[in-house]
Amino acid sequence: MDDSLSSELDKLTDAVLASYDTDPRTRRIDDAFLPSHGRIVKLVDLLRQLLFPGYFTAKVLTRHNVRFHVGTLLEEIQTVLTDQVAHCICSDDHPSCDACSAAGPCHHKAQRIAQQFLDRIPSIRDALALDAQAAYDGDPAAKNIAEVIYCYPGFYAVTIYRIAHELWNLGVPLMARIMSEHAHSVTGCDIHPAARIGRSFFIDHATGVVIGETSRIGDNVKIYQGVTLGAKSFPKDERGRVIKGLQRHPTIENRVTIYANATILGGQTVVGQGATVAGNTFITESVTADSVAEITPPEVKVRAKKARRVES
Amino acid sequence: MDDSLSSELDKLTDAVLASYDTDPRTRRIDDAFLPSHGRIVKLVDLLRQLLFPGYFTAKVLTRHNVRFHVGTLLEEIQTVLTDQVAHCICSDDHPSCDACSAAGPCHHKAQRIAQQFLDRIPSIRDALALDAQAAYDGDPAAKNIAEVIYCYPGFYAVTIYRIAHELWNLGVPLMARIMSEHAHSVTGCDIHPAARIGRSFFIDHATGVVIGETSRIGDNVKIYQGVTLGAKSFPKDERGRVIKGLQRHPTIENRVTIYANATILGGQTVVGQGATVAGNTFITESVTADSVAEITPPEVKVRAKKARRVES
Amino acid sequence: MDDSLSSELDKLTDAVLASYDTDPRTRRIDDAFLPSHGRIVKLVDLLRQLLFPGYFTAKVLTRHNVRFHVGTLLEEIQTVLTDQVAHCICSDDHPSCDACSAAGPCHHKAQRIAQQFLDRIPSIRDALALDAQAAYDGDPAAKNIAEVIYCYPGFYAVTIYRIAHELWNLGVPLMARIMSEHAHSVTGCDIHPAARIGRSFFIDHATGVVIGETSRIGDNVKIYQGVTLGAKSFPKDERGRVIKGLQRHPTIENRVTIYANATILGGQTVVGQGATVAGNTFITESVTADSVAEITPPEVKVRAKKARRVES
Repeated sequence: MDDSLSSELDKLTDAVLASYDTDPRTRRIDDAFLPSHGRIVKLVDLLRQLLFPGYFTAKVLTRHNVRFHVGTLLEEIQTVLTDQVAHCICSDDHPSCDACSAAGPCHHKAQRIAQQFLDRIPSIRDALALDAQAAYDGDPAAKNIAEVIYCYPGFYAVTIYRIAHELWNLGVPLMARIMSEHAHSVTGCDIHPAARIGRSFFIDHATGVVIGETSRIGDNVKIYQGVTLGAKSFPKDERGRVIKGLQRHPTIENRVTIYANATILGGQTVVGQGATVAGNTFITESVTADSVAEITPPEVKVRAKKARRVES
Repeated sequence: MDDSLSSELDKLTDAVLASYDTDPRTRRIDDAFLPSHGRIVKLVDLLRQLLFPGYFTAKVLTRHNVRFHVGTLLEEIQTVLTDQVAHCICSDDHPSCDACSAAGPCHHKAQRIAQQFLDRIPSIRDALALDAQAAYDGDPAAKNIAEVIYCYPGFYAVTIYRIAHELWNLGVPLMARIMSEHAHSVTGCDIHPAARIGRSFFIDHATGVVIGETSRIGDNVKIYQGVTLGAKSFPKDERGRVIKGLQRHPTIENRVTIYANATILGGQTVVGQGATVAGNTFITESVTADSVAEITPPEVKVRAKKARRVES
Repeated sequence: MDDSLSSELDKLTDAVLASYDTDPRTRRIDDAFLPSHGRIVKLVDLLRQLLFPGYFTAKVLTRHNVRFHVGTLLEEIQTVLTDQVAHCICSDDHPSCDACSAAGPCHHKAQRIAQQFLDRIPSIRDALALDAQAAYDGDPAAKNIAEVIYCYPGFYAVTIYRIAHELWNLGVPLMARIMSEHAHSVTGCDIHPAARIGRSFFIDHATGVVIGETSRIGDNVKIYQGVTLGAKSFPKDERGRVIKGLQRHPTIENRVTIYANATILGGQTVVGQGATVAGNTFITESVTADSVAEITPPEVKVRAKKARRVES
């Protein structure tokens, strides 16, 4: 590098460092280590291998090699999970402890959380088998359940949700958010990990679906692309601050189907069991059970185009 | 690893293996090998290099090196394609043959399919040149055709569709679905590989577009973000099972433009040639040729905000 | 490889080369080198490390190592940026110069542009600190600013926009487009780099947002998923060609909030300061300041489902 470039770099470095000094909000210097986005995405891949044996592995699984495969996989998952949970706890709590130290309190807490999470793998698998069946049953284009597990973005989003929801409940919200935003990026479907979702859940086409933090969804619910379960407004206290902990998003009861691009808003809004919400419907009040909520779509007027010269 | 951790891992392994035993739907053990998602995405990258020489390669192509480049690329594509097609055939048909054996019947069938696919490369290129031209002509923000090929997500989705559609027709639906869901993930545009799409097709902005399995689209059609070509309902037989093979999605004839977030549903619905469908329109009945189908948008009421104290 | 396969490959190669000869639009042979999509995405990652020290790095930053870290990072960024800017300039202008030559005119021009861009890093950081604060203030689900910077797709899209907009202004539109389409792919949010956006901008949920090339957005604006700021029609000259350089997209003034799936179209359309645009609103005319623009949502009719036999 010639001298003038080198001196330019020096000046640039000074300017950038001065900028770091001015605003603490966008820097983490002398601060706890953040978890690694890349390693958490890797963890999601390992968990999918564990949840769906033989689907996402580079080798054929047989009854002879499966025990060895699972043991090896669990050991790797436990290591990465414990490590990243420790970083999440540290960065959430901003303590001065060093998460990298295998003897630190965060590390011990992380070990317990990882253990509790892994104990839930069988029940997560049970839930996902029902979700896969629901997708197959709900989509005439599905050829078999393997295709659902292997290809369907809605099923991918639900898989990550079921993992992330457990981590949320175990007190690792940052890891849960990183996972759910990864699923959002891959599928276009934004499910907050704190939402509560029942059995046999199917999201078709996935893109544009938003399921907010305090949504509650029952069993056998089916949702299409572009559906929002959102907040109507944010209740504020007398000082204008948003009151935390209230339900801001709707309740969807068992056996409800919500068609494409419907919007359902508000923590008081309940869609009763067995109801169907038609496409493009904008709902801010409760819908009774076993009913159809629909709009008369705005009348489509068809008029002849004006004559004009043929385009060349 | 200390003893207690090791014994925890043993217990976890047992629990996970027990879970594998309970439900055959979510495991593939002692089952045919699945194709590799990663290698099929790699194949898509190689095919883009072949289809658009000089665009996605790490070296400059010249008239002197291009023959060598193409020969090398075709050999690699042929190998990966044959291998993955064989896995797709095996996993679709669930036979006991070993796809990895270069002498097995799936491998020979896969060789024939790969050959037939590669013979269609020139005609796929012809179609994509027209698609790229259509994107350039249809978007005032486009600077040149190179920008379309290099950057436009709608063009990426259409490229993958044209590849996947050939594979669908050649009897490899699983590979076609993996490719189209990859494009869906990258672009937010969900085109089923079985859909039939004519010449000079352009999708602008891409995100949220859904084009269902039995859609038929003519030549010179232009679609904007958020458009759904969907099914109205699924005709069922007397036992309540969805009848396969019927057209469930609309027909869009030549020279139709469909603006953002329009929804067009139903296998009987035909949008006639030269018609324009306005944004946000919800269409479940046919639209006559050379007409404009539009709604009077819901009247927007503008009311003054209530006075309140100025926010601090 | 056996002889018949080898001869097949020869024939295929001939067919593909013949196809390259027929249409110049889809080939770049004997043409200037294109920039590398992969290296530009890598550049985005390096710039995020520079903009948010300690967030996306694999090591803990301290006051002791930060100067060394920044110097090293800047040197790498300067090298990649200069190189890729040179390729962009060459391929934009289609000259016969060789961008790879460190002595060529494109390289010198690229060095100047890279320098000018890097001088703007502190002001980009200032803008992004305000954007991160706006996201935290605007979303009750946000736990802290670190979560916004680390996880929020809307903030990712705005980060890439602020980088790409500078590159657009510095005369490197192809690099700007590649970056913004990368952000579009990751987030589902399509912000054209030429759009002008003020301070403290927040996009929640991100998916499906489209902000067109000539949009102008003021300070403290908040936008939700699925919002389009689009063109009503493209004014054409007497020969039917789109007139370039006119404002085709709306102006959004300070302190405006636009709720989910609203569509605002046209270069003459101004949403006045302090206004709120309700969800699903379709706006093609200006909205006065400090008002609420809303529709009466289409009346939702709730009707009981017909009795039918209980599903098995």
